[in-house]
Amino acid sequence: VRALVFDGRLRLERDRPAPTPAEGEALIRVLAAGICNTDLEITKGYMGFAGVLGHEFVGVVEQSPDGNWDGKRVVGEINCACESCEWCRRGLLNHCPNRTVLGIVGRDGAFAEYVTLPVGNLHEVPPTVSDTQAVFVEPLAAAYEILEQVTVRRDDRVVVLGDGKLGLLAAQVLADAGAECCLVGRHASKLELAQSLGLCVSEAAEIAEKSRGLVVDCTGSTEGLRQAMRLVEPRGTIVLKSTVAGDDGPNLTPVVVDEVTVVGSRCGPFAPAIAALAEGRVRVEELVAAAYGLDDGLEAMAAAAEPGALKVVLQITV
Amino acid sequence: VRALVFDGRLRLERDRPAPTPAEGEALIRVLAAGICNTDLEITKGYMGFAGVLGHEFVGVVEQSPDGNWDGKRVVGEINCACESCEWCRRGLLNHCPNRTVLGIVGRDGAFAEYVTLPVGNLHEVPPTVSDTQAVFVEPLAAAYEILEQVTVRRDDRVVVLGDGKLGLLAAQVLADAGAECCLVGRHASKLELAQSLGLCVSEAAEIAEKSRGLVVDCTGSTEGLRQAMRLVEPRGTIVLKSTVAGDDGPNLTPVVVDEVTVVGSRCGPFAPAIAALAEGRVRVEELVAAAYGLDDGLEAMAAAAEPGALKVVLQITV
Repeated sequence: VRALVFDGRLRLERDRPAPTPAEGEALIRVLAAGICNTDLEITKGYMGFAGVLGHEFVGVVEQSPDGNWDGKRVVGEINCACESCEWCRRGLLNHCPNRTVLGIVGRDGAFAEYVTLPVGNLHEVPPTVSDTQAVFVEPLAAAYEILEQVTVRRDDRVVVLGDGKLGLLAAQVLADAGAECCLVGRHASKLELAQSLGLCVSEAAEIAEKSRGLVVDCTGSTEGLRQAMRLVEPRGTIVLKSTVAGDDGPNLTPVVVDEVTVVGSRCGPFAPAIAALAEGRVRVEELVAAAYGLDDGLEAMAAAAEPGALKVVLQITV
Repeated sequence: VRALVFDGRLRLERDRPAPTPAEGEALIRVLAAGICNTDLEITKGYMGFAGVLGHEFVGVVEQSPDGNWDGKRVVGEINCACESCEWCRRGLLNHCPNRTVLGIVGRDGAFAEYVTLPVGNLHEVPPTVSDTQAVFVEPLAAAYEILEQVTVRRDDRVVVLGDGKLGLLAAQVLADAGAECCLVGRHASKLELAQSLGLCVSEAAEIAEKSRGLVVDCTGSTEGLRQAMRLVEPRGTIVLKSTVAGDDGPNLTPVVVDEVTVVGSRCGPFAPAIAALAEGRVRVEELVAAAYGLDDGLEAMAAAAEPGALKVVLQITV
């Protein structure tokens, strides 16, 4: 099968063996997949991953342990837990220390014609959600993780820092939850897009210091946390989504003095993400920059790496 | 009156005018005061403060607005709020943006024969608490702030990083709250002291990575947060007490990946600190390194600045 592989070098393999589902796993034909910044980071060495890239996908189950999933259109959670350790027993499967992670840690990903995942990771996609929308379920779930971790009340004043893909999703989720949400970014075209999605946008300099109860950092840079510390009010909360390379970040003394809470936030629940897409409460098709076939995968990765690029989608099978 | 003053230069003034209590304030004769690392930082330029240093004290009220406090032995909360802003209306007086802070921001401190404070800041000291013990109420309250911010259950496995004054207080507070608390430090003599106080001590290297639900950083250095990120378990909590100079700290990517919560923690409630001292649940007299008269204040400050110094107490009046 065809697959986009990284093992120190990024390349398209044309005759890779099809994956064999392990016990409890489904074999899924991949319809479409999305390129995430994490994929780009992996090609720079992040996580030391070698194998098929890709963890945002929609596909059709071709084979499942008891046949129940066969023919269903699905998306899949990316963390594959051992289900026997203390973390799994506590229900924190996404933090299982023995987990593999689709296309990130020890498990081939979805930039290929076929992928395997445990059936427990699958979610059926309703017919009202398009393939392109479904590709956004995984990153949108990461945005919904914010609501799992922080109580957001109607009219709470929230700032989302970063007008990239995750920022545009997080701002929509928070606005849909009733917050008075403002998106701060640096790219005029993306801020225009945000406004066309009904979001309030602002310059960071227009927001009073220490004036927001919740600041969500989706900048992907350490500068985001510095800005968040300037904008958050005493006893407020910063949700941190940015993972960055390097040893250093900002001095957290303002967090101590103002008794701020910083909450690290990663993968999230698929169900509310699918529901929001099905009900049209979050718009994602506007976030697609371009679509490529898998044969043009290298070109697609280059397009995704352009500064300020929105979502690049791979159309893999039909 | 005599007072230890910093205005770019640290010096003992011998004939400074006695302070005049403003409306609602008491005039307090200072019995004893403690030198805190913040006092040392101020003499290096922290907060840009100029005036009488000192914010940990015990004294006797000589004059109060309605006479009710006269003759009482008291300790005093250090944040003097405006009581009219939004923060004060919400009860977050310690975060009032208009506040003065005793010996730190816009208000002369307690390294003097007399000090003034609003009567609302005063707490009477019970006769079972000695003057020396009472000097520890303010830093001990900062340790009790942890219990205000984080739920600590019996047998929770907690690590306190830093065997300095605050670490030794925080570990006692957490152990008294029922936690299985372990103190990590670098100074053999202070770790021995900790053991003599009944605390469990350990080397950081002996503690398994990602094994503790709560890690409290009292190191006063950015290295503490790095170590805390190594020891805290996924979804765990780091309480951050260290305020440090400089622009940089550690990269918080591990906080994101493990969805850790970092809680900044500063001043705390006096009542539980006074009760713990009165009931002998927290021991502080062992933390006194030396006592000096106010005339020897410069020498006392130098002693407090010795690496690894415990609490230096100023005996001011009798």
